[in-house]
Amino acid sequence: MTGEEPLKIGIAGLGTVGSATLGYLMHENARIAARAGRALKVDAIVARDRTKDRGVDTAGLRWFDDPVALAKDDGIDIFLELIGGADGVAKAAVEAALTAGKPVVTANKALLAHHGAALSKLAEETPGASLHYEAAVAGGIPAVKALREGLAGNGVTRVSGILNGTCNYILTEMEETGAAFADVLLDAQKLGYAETDPTADVGGFDAAHKLAIMAAIAFGRQIDFAGVEIEGIENVSSEDIVAAGDMGYRIRLLGMAERTAEGVSQRLRPCLTPIDSPLGAIEGVTNAVMLEGDAIGTTVLTGPGAGGGPTASAVLADIVDVARGNTPPTFGIACNDLAPARSGLSIRDEGAFYLRVALEDRPGTLAEVAAALGEEGVSIHRMRQHEHTGNAAPVTIVTHTCDLAAIEKAKTRIAALPASVAPPVAMRIVES
Amino acid sequence: MTGEEPLKIGIAGLGTVGSATLGYLMHENARIAARAGRALKVDAIVARDRTKDRGVDTAGLRWFDDPVALAKDDGIDIFLELIGGADGVAKAAVEAALTAGKPVVTANKALLAHHGAALSKLAEETPGASLHYEAAVAGGIPAVKALREGLAGNGVTRVSGILNGTCNYILTEMEETGAAFADVLLDAQKLGYAETDPTADVGGFDAAHKLAIMAAIAFGRQIDFAGVEIEGIENVSSEDIVAAGDMGYRIRLLGMAERTAEGVSQRLRPCLTPIDSPLGAIEGVTNAVMLEGDAIGTTVLTGPGAGGGPTASAVLADIVDVARGNTPPTFGIACNDLAPARSGLSIRDEGAFYLRVALEDRPGTLAEVAAALGEEGVSIHRMRQHEHTGNAAPVTIVTHTCDLAAIEKAKTRIAALPASVAPPVAMRIVES
Repeated sequence: MTGEEPLKIGIAGLGTVGSATLGYLMHENARIAARAGRALKVDAIVARDRTKDRGVDTAGLRWFDDPVALAKDDGIDIFLELIGGADGVAKAAVEAALTAGKPVVTANKALLAHHGAALSKLAEETPGASLHYEAAVAGGIPAVKALREGLAGNGVTRVSGILNGTCNYILTEMEETGAAFADVLLDAQKLGYAETDPTADVGGFDAAHKLAIMAAIAFGRQIDFAGVEIEGIENVSSEDIVAAGDMGYRIRLLGMAERTAEGVSQRLRPCLTPIDSPLGAIEGVTNAVMLEGDAIGTTVLTGPGAGGGPTASAVLADIVDVARGNTPPTFGIACNDLAPARSGLSIRDEGAFYLRVALEDRPGTLAEVAAALGEEGVSIHRMRQHEHTGNAAPVTIVTHTCDLAAIEKAKTRIAALPASVAPPVAMRIVES
Repeated sequence: MTGEEPLKIGIAGLGTVGSATLGYLMHENARIAARAGRALKVDAIVARDRTKDRGVDTAGLRWFDDPVALAKDDGIDIFLELIGGADGVAKAAVEAALTAGKPVVTANKALLAHHGAALSKLAEETPGASLHYEAAVAGGIPAVKALREGLAGNGVTRVSGILNGTCNYILTEMEETGAAFADVLLDAQKLGYAETDPTADVGGFDAAHKLAIMAAIAFGRQIDFAGVEIEGIENVSSEDIVAAGDMGYRIRLLGMAERTAEGVSQRLRPCLTPIDSPLGAIEGVTNAVMLEGDAIGTTVLTGPGAGGGPTASAVLADIVDVARGNTPPTFGIACNDLAPARSGLSIRDEGAFYLRVALEDRPGTLAEVAAALGEEGVSIHRMRQHEHTGNAAPVTIVTHTCDLAAIEKAKTRIAALPASVAPPVAMRIVES
């Protein structure tokens, strides 16, 4: 430990993550300071409720009402933004801290996804400022550090993952219980695994924020949240989960950013993936990040994607980095070296697809479906007719590699068949 | 990219890893330099054979015959030791580079395991010197960075893993083919997965080096390779693999360092672990590192543990760290803050155990075994008699939690029974 002044920490937001972070900084201070190579002192905090018991003695701390005032305060050396929200006070406070030349640590994936370009530029242009956000991606898993630093020598080809624990919990429960999405969601809300307004999670937006952040680092390009194609899990049915399971697949909400000949694609959507693949094997609230590069091949990181302790672990790692002076550019390379975000570029989506079609149970209908697929150049790898339920005979199809555009056209053709009793469902199959 | 002088790199050793590293630094220079925030230039190399084609144009490089001379050379800013070996020229060269105040990057786990204490002290005491070894543990997996920096806020409770790809390949092959250890080893040697002298791998020493390194970082203590209890896979039999499989377990060579009430234990040995556990699921040459801490809970990293590309990926990450000025203490905290290595301390080894006993197939023998276990206080959880083979009836037993000392005593008792036809085998069961 050196004799220098302690690093004085200001924390805005004492919710689950803020309280856990504060707790570790107070109760395990010496241990963390040894890792940081410097004394660490929580100096000031902002929280709505000053009376709430957070299991920590806050008597010696300065209290602020306004996060922006704390962010600017000369008494702190580093600002922790643990408030949340893409805009509003969180953004204002982060801007204020960066403008004041302070390192900022945040767990705010929405802020990064929406304003990462401007904030990274501000951090880079302001002496003393830097922006750290390990906690914004996959909770405690050190995914940002692994990608930005651990794989720094690689030409990254693909970054993929299970980036939302709530969705993975729901999909796992649907698998195990056979229950419908809506019922499992209700249970998840009761258990506290899902928010009252579940849109950010089940709609895929939270995971898409994380994917956009990782894609920016992986491919050295400006963050492009608007460029993420997003589909949530609201329409995943028990029928599809069972049909996928029969073929050795699980349905998982996969984020996937890939370098292709046409550019970088960013897609967040339910996919079929083998039950024993690195991502297919992930159950419950666990997150997983798969990183692929020219030198390393593939490495996979799994762990808790949320929760006070794991997220605090990531925040603390960023504090230690700041204390040690490890402040690389926000997205791994200088802002001016980042490739521009693509704008409205549509990138071919090629692969095998799963299709489920519900047909009237009478002779000749399968041939009509096969013909519709053939007319769009979609070649069938496997096709299976299931016991009919009600008036419909479900048919599941696995295609050979083809383009999503062809699948969409085939779906339209099939939906227009007189025998079709429900809109066809299609999902991408990701073998690994 | 700044306008400063390039970071001039000296590489000693152009084997698989050195050549791969050199190749990336030459062919992907601009990409890696962008990550490093600084121009990178390979300046000088040492290799035995100057004529060998390494797929890289070495015309502009300075050649040295003596690694120590290169290490000391004023023309280089960073020294890459990719020679190998715990002692000899590798050690002399690393010492010379550190003494000259240069950052050193090495993939040499044996060197770290045996001389890490002295080398880390030398690095710390010499201005400009630092010691980087991401490539020494689990190849391309950024395990050192994850543990030292990503989990810096955690009180680590356990570090475990599958740390030797050769052993895991052999165990996986034995599982899949039913072949004996010796035959699979021979095949592995033919395929280049095992060395001509396989002792370092199958004897567990290579994995033990890596475990000792991770334990030093995880628990903030001096590296203590001598304190690792080591057992290789040479005595793992097909019978045990089959019996384990029947109970839902796989046999894996696990490295495990744990903080216990008595101190830190370091053990490297074949264990039974559930087929669907994070480590039990690992097949073939893949490595896996499981990190457990008070804040994060558990995170698992998997990937390629060896090979030119993956190991070069780790070496390049260290170079980027050096270029960026990210040079934390060798084992994460200052040498003086490291706890002393334990010396000869014996730490209780408690858990469930697997026992295989070969008995004459006659009435009453099972009762004798049960009595022998009972006399040592070993309580039976599951017991199963298998079809007899030859003159012996194999019996497999899973115990409740007990101490290894009791198991050892029970083994002695059982071996002395008149009905015992072969020495009993015992292995620790690790549920997760």
